[in-house]
Amino acid sequence: MKIAIVGAGAMGSRYGYMLHESGNEVFLIDAWKAHVDIINNEGLTIEENGKCKKVKIPAMLPEDAKEVPDLIILFTKSMGLESMLKSVKNVLGKHTRVLCLLNGLGHNETIEKYVDNKNILMGVTLWTAGLAGPGHVVLSGDGSLEVQNIDPNTEVEAREICDILSQAGLKAHYSADVLFSIWRKACVNGTLNSCCTILDCNIREFGELKEAPKLIRNIIKEFSDIAAKYGVKLNVEEVAKGIEKIYDPSQAGEHHPSMHQDLIQNHRLTEIDYINGYVSRKGKEFNINTQCNDLLTTIVHAKEQLLVK
Amino acid sequence: MKIAIVGAGAMGSRYGYMLHESGNEVFLIDAWKAHVDIINNEGLTIEENGKCKKVKIPAMLPEDAKEVPDLIILFTKSMGLESMLKSVKNVLGKHTRVLCLLNGLGHNETIEKYVDNKNILMGVTLWTAGLAGPGHVVLSGDGSLEVQNIDPNTEVEAREICDILSQAGLKAHYSADVLFSIWRKACVNGTLNSCCTILDCNIREFGELKEAPKLIRNIIKEFSDIAAKYGVKLNVEEVAKGIEKIYDPSQAGEHHPSMHQDLIQNHRLTEIDYINGYVSRKGKEFNINTQCNDLLTTIVHAKEQLLVK
Repeated sequence: MKIAIVGAGAMGSRYGYMLHESGNEVFLIDAWKAHVDIINNEGLTIEENGKCKKVKIPAMLPEDAKEVPDLIILFTKSMGLESMLKSVKNVLGKHTRVLCLLNGLGHNETIEKYVDNKNILMGVTLWTAGLAGPGHVVLSGDGSLEVQNIDPNTEVEAREICDILSQAGLKAHYSADVLFSIWRKACVNGTLNSCCTILDCNIREFGELKEAPKLIRNIIKEFSDIAAKYGVKLNVEEVAKGIEKIYDPSQAGEHHPSMHQDLIQNHRLTEIDYINGYVSRKGKEFNINTQCNDLLTTIVHAKEQLLVK
Repeated sequence: MKIAIVGAGAMGSRYGYMLHESGNEVFLIDAWKAHVDIINNEGLTIEENGKCKKVKIPAMLPEDAKEVPDLIILFTKSMGLESMLKSVKNVLGKHTRVLCLLNGLGHNETIEKYVDNKNILMGVTLWTAGLAGPGHVVLSGDGSLEVQNIDPNTEVEAREICDILSQAGLKAHYSADVLFSIWRKACVNGTLNSCCTILDCNIREFGELKEAPKLIRNIIKEFSDIAAKYGVKLNVEEVAKGIEKIYDPSQAGEHHPSMHQDLIQNHRLTEIDYINGYVSRKGKEFNINTQCNDLLTTIVHAKEQLLVK
């Protein structure tokens, strides 16, 4: 299958590499020129268990992409999705499936502006990957992903794509309710990412706070009120208990969430508008009280203005 | 007049010194032993315009205070008020007037547990003072204060106390609505103190944020909803505009609010429970929406747990 990875950072490179190894015709599309150039000149460096190897996979800038693939896997940053979709318009063929594996909420609404519903697949991935520098991806740990079609008539095609992904070792499962998984993952990010960023602490430290139990439930409650509008039933207590398991240092406790890494450590803009900010916007739209997420979004945006130069 | 300053930190020492100089019999009561000892052994050092002088004013720990004064001026930290009132119970005479000049909200409710209504005076002071070390107070700038009786029948006595204070150069004005001034000052603290603490910025930086205008109005709106329950009418827009004047670097713009100094700079507990936290508690009591202040209070308490060892 001809597969384009659109947004070939750490995770996109992992997927691209694994799909390439299993015999697909893969190309990487990314807006970071240094990254694209190194991959083309020296190959994509794959580091796994301390060993490096170089793999020849074509890479290109969005404006240079011309070939229409069978499948596009979207792995951009949330705030880069729409401009990327505009840039790669030429490679969005009539039959090109588009699988969105971005974190966050509302991406289907953005994609629907550029892609026919019947071609859209939504997914949630539990794989991880890191980038050691341009053209150099570090792989560790195990993962899996869930995939589902948006159009109820395209389940067969979605299952086929799951097979392609699983043949590459990516452990893809067809999901009957991927939206639920997307919302549940957004609750994890909407509590731990924003709170650890605002409080400048790691996940274990956050979990030890007296205020944490009530605070995460207040946040999740508002997520669940908005999710309900999309037919997704989130049980606040169940989601909260799931998050509380992550506090354990043997889980992700000693880890600073990605938003903390972005804003506090690296002074980069965050994905807040696609997590708490999405809930906040939809609250206004549906006239539902989302004051907790309104204020968390406001504080993170304020911190962005103070820290991102 | 025999006057006890209860809580003789920077501001209490300023008031004690000025009232002593104008001929009153002043004694200082404070729980900080090193401070009390130095004042008794070497005198209270008054630094003004770069010059120091030592003034002999008796100082004592709360448990050593025996003499009943005509007037007590309260200048403790908010969270120390109740335990201090318990400690000085013996000097609260039947006719001792008690003037509360603490920052924050709800102190009258605490004082009413220990002092007869007719003896309570509430005030707001615009004086400033700093402490360079135990027994060493630094005075600069000009100020004034407003004073009012709680019991409508004791206006005459309140005016007499204003006279005593003004004779000491403290520029005391009798106020017909001191509660309004207390709430308006609490709005300044409830916006700038908590926001600059959570965002780790100074007042000018806060004022430059895109989010600041809406954020302070949301906070003040909830203050005004609670204030209304006490017969205090706060005009949100007017209060907000008053706060926005302070952003100017020629005003307090380059200044970090006291809560930032306490928590972020010195890792000390804050007065949040007597500012935003008071509004939040009263919101629950009156079933009024104060979600913005609820969350700000939660975040500051969480930061206290992370920073105060």
